[in-house]
Amino acid sequence: MASRARLEDRECPLSTTVQHVGEWWTLLILHDAFDGYTRFDQFQQSLDISTSMLTARLKTLVADGLLERRPYQTSPVRHEYLLTERGRSLRPVIVALAAWGNQHLAPEERSMILVDAETGEEAEPVVVDAHTGRSLADSDAYVFAAGPAGSTGMRARYAELERQRRTRSAEVPAS
Amino acid sequence: MASRARLEDRECPLSTTVQHVGEWWTLLILHDAFDGYTRFDQFQQSLDISTSMLTARLKTLVADGLLERRPYQTSPVRHEYLLTERGRSLRPVIVALAAWGNQHLAPEERSMILVDAETGEEAEPVVVDAHTGRSLADSDAYVFAAGPAGSTGMRARYAELERQRRTRSAEVPAS
Repeated sequence: MASRARLEDRECPLSTTVQHVGEWWTLLILHDAFDGYTRFDQFQQSLDISTSMLTARLKTLVADGLLERRPYQTSPVRHEYLLTERGRSLRPVIVALAAWGNQHLAPEERSMILVDAETGEEAEPVVVDAHTGRSLADSDAYVFAAGPAGSTGMRARYAELERQRRTRSAEVPAS
Repeated sequence: MASRARLEDRECPLSTTVQHVGEWWTLLILHDAFDGYTRFDQFQQSLDISTSMLTARLKTLVADGLLERRPYQTSPVRHEYLLTERGRSLRPVIVALAAWGNQHLAPEERSMILVDAETGEEAEPVVVDAHTGRSLADSDAYVFAAGPAGSTGMRARYAELERQRRTRSAEVPAS
């Protein structure tokens, strides 16, 4: 697809993730993997997709380094699919996506939740800065900016946005 | 697409998010919106996509309640696109996706980062439980489970996984 090829050229880390995670189906397979599923028939039963589609998706996930394919028995040889370190590092993304789905439902309307494994207490996922513990949902407190490797275009974009922000805050009288 | 229709039937909140967020392009438009872009030409210049494609995507975002279309001038009438409350609530998802992209790069290799608006200090996004502050990346401490509205199938899935987890932890001698 043209749009996918275009995505790969972008320097935004959001595009990088999109490029690696690929199809939305990927996330559903990874969710199953986080639940401990490792075998083809487990994924297939859970996702209810065709053998050829699941084979293709698993192949992509292995090629992308998110899953590792490993034999678990001989004669006949059977393989299982295990999360790699890189695959496991997608867990916060999956948690954030699921949290958004649940956020718009009352607690009693939720079909799948994240719980403390010991107490069974429902978790309330929030994205915060590891250093300060402050919420990153606040678009006034935290903003996107050009990083050290940002191109001229990226730097120009964020320099201009920064200028506009300063102009706006200068217009607002101090409370 | 058949797979998209199938997704909508799923009770998993991850599928709900997928259904609403739709195409990956959606996230890139929302990122622009979080950066403060509101006008068609701003989105188009940033995303470098065709007028017809951008028109279709914006229409979908408005129909989904993620953006609001509002006139900002008359003669000729021009519209701008503003994030709704629901759209703004996707910010943690976007932050988590971008963080994953950056996580696999050294700090000096990052093109776009999230910073404290006042200090310019780079944020380190992590997903934690709002109640305890503990990281939700740890798949031993926090697990998915059937919620109050879970179907029989969802309950059976997680009851079985819970049983397996208890069996495994009983097998591991206490350290």
